Amino acid sequence: MTNNSYRAAGVDLAAAARALDAIRVAVTSTYDDRVLAGLGSFGGLFELTDLPERPVLVASTDGVGTKTMVAAQLDRVDVLGHDIVNHCLNDILVQGARPLFFLDYIATSRLSPELIARVVTGAAEACRAAGMPLLGGETAEMPDVYRTGELDLVGTIVGVVGRNEIIDGSAIREGDVVLAFESGGPQTNGFSLARAALGGRYTDPLDPADPDGPTIGDALLVPHRSYEAAVRPLLERDLVHGLVHVTGGGIPGNLVRVLPEGLQADIDTTAWPVPPIFGAIRRAGEVSLQEMYDVFNMGAGFLLVLDPEHAAEARELAGEQLHEIGRISRGTAGVTLDFPDED
Amino acid sequence: MTNNSYRAAGVDLAAAARALDAIRVAVTSTYDDRVLAGLGSFGGLFELTDLPERPVLVASTDGVGTKTMVAAQLDRVDVLGHDIVNHCLNDILVQGARPLFFLDYIATSRLSPELIARVVTGAAEACRAAGMPLLGGETAEMPDVYRTGELDLVGTIVGVVGRNEIIDGSAIREGDVVLAFESGGPQTNGFSLARAALGGRYTDPLDPADPDGPTIGDALLVPHRSYEAAVRPLLERDLVHGLVHVTGGGIPGNLVRVLPEGLQADIDTTAWPVPPIFGAIRRAGEVSLQEMYDVFNMGAGFLLVLDPEHAAEARELAGEQLHEIGRISRGTAGVTLDFPDED
Repeated sequence: MTNNSYRAAGVDLAAAARALDAIRVAVTSTYDDRVLAGLGSFGGLFELTDLPERPVLVASTDGVGTKTMVAAQLDRVDVLGHDIVNHCLNDILVQGARPLFFLDYIATSRLSPELIARVVTGAAEACRAAGMPLLGGETAEMPDVYRTGELDLVGTIVGVVGRNEIIDGSAIREGDVVLAFESGGPQTNGFSLARAALGGRYTDPLDPADPDGPTIGDALLVPHRSYEAAVRPLLERDLVHGLVHVTGGGIPGNLVRVLPEGLQADIDTTAWPVPPIFGAIRRAGEVSLQEMYDVFNMGAGFLLVLDPEHAAEARELAGEQLHEIGRISRGTAGVTLDFPDED
Repeated sequence: MTNNSYRAAGVDLAAAARALDAIRVAVTSTYDDRVLAGLGSFGGLFELTDLPERPVLVASTDGVGTKTMVAAQLDRVDVLGHDIVNHCLNDILVQGARPLFFLDYIATSRLSPELIARVVTGAAEACRAAGMPLLGGETAEMPDVYRTGELDLVGTIVGVVGRNEIIDGSAIREGDVVLAFESGGPQTNGFSLARAALGGRYTDPLDPADPDGPTIGDALLVPHRSYEAAVRPLLERDLVHGLVHVTGGGIPGNLVRVLPEGLQADIDTTAWPVPPIFGAIRRAGEVSLQEMYDVFNMGAGFLLVLDPEHAAEARELAGEQLHEIGRISRGTAGVTLDFPDED
């Protein structure tokens, strides 16, 4: 197989040609002067400019899990491109890195140029929004490896941060507050549990009392948000002690990764609004509250840890609502979750 | 899902613990001073040092295709780690880039820590041989996406080259020779065709006259070679006009990508030894000679295009046999293959 190919062997219809053209247009729409696209035809060349002092590359590879299955079933695969790009952006943002470029890999049971075009177009939109070229990609058709109609989507991001500007949680201290950005939904985590709990009832209304309102599928497929634009001004003002992308493992599994030895975080689960989709999953699958918080972000997609004196400035710079959901104290309990008394 | 996790949810046996320990040991064995592993626990930090003038990052994402199926069936998945790393190394070598770091993604129907450990250990060995850290990775278990027992393996490499040292084929001129490194087998390309042709007879002897000799499976699973060490000295002496990694599309599909306008390459297919596995595939599947050369590397895994006056020096620096397989001439025929008269 060959990088940057997006070839669709064995498919030679006019629709395929249009799809391949749409892919080319989408990918090149993300290019800027740093992409040396004219040099050779193997692609993937990115000139490093404006490097910080002592530049450190930050790289991350990830997938979107079985959100692919829900998106494919509801014919909404375009959201997956946004999901994988924004997920990766957040994964390097937690260390303070700004994005340089992105690569994708799409493998399916049967290559459909139209499907690839929809995923890549979504990815290219998210890349453009982040000012990050979609530098390369690969597609693979493997009917003996993938179940019929299924796909996997993998993204890799490379970013850069100055060695002295890396955020790693070591600045977190007693008395700091934990602020949360809203997620709007499960983003790309917990879909195996969500699918098992919901049993495929994606076209049912999310709120039985509002049959014309959003469906369960609409709520599940809310795209993964990028927190880059909202968090960047706080990094530039050096306000942040720790950053957390709430992915698999939920708040406890991810916040604990930045806590210095001897400090714990006490989270009040009533301090932010939990989107209704989580209640729907919980009721449908009779999932315990503890498991819900251990698997899903529960509406808190990205966390900031900072000095309470800077909370007001952080809110202003972020330009959106930030919920104060917890405090850092001395202790060895890791992350504690305070639930209401209902469970 | 979370980067760098290698978590094995739901598996808590002693064997799993040993496998996870083996993964940790293998991954950290690839680290050097450039990996900032102590900073935070999200991983994936690589300090840029010794940059060339006008540094250009070269990145590539790729998979190993359905070689995974043959390796899984023969219980030889360790080879896949070597395959993906070396494939990626060659993919950036064609532009003159030296490797910086590598990331992997392994997804299966059912996460087995032992299987992941074997793949990652192979990848770590290949990374160490290339002086390149295995900076991060991700595993995913998706039984509803992957067929039972199947896996996919995706690698991403990032390397660097000075802007003025990029090899892109533009230096290729009339009269240049094409030299070929041997591959030893199909490497990671053409496994869908090979599997269809061979019908699963992997344990049969490759040579029916030598029942104790290598099997068809042995020949298929010869690891993908890295040509980095052999080619690097030629790049340092500025001997090379064009480089070609012979992957999907074979010699014609890949050599054509570096040919400047108005030049063609005429290849003599009798000029290098074709490993017996290709004859076995061809006979078993009644595949035409043209299709064989359009799909497989046919024993020529990596090509150099250079001035014939430099061929002797190139052979000496490479330290191994280089077969002169063709010439560059004026013309618009692209890549022509001269077959013997048997087909």
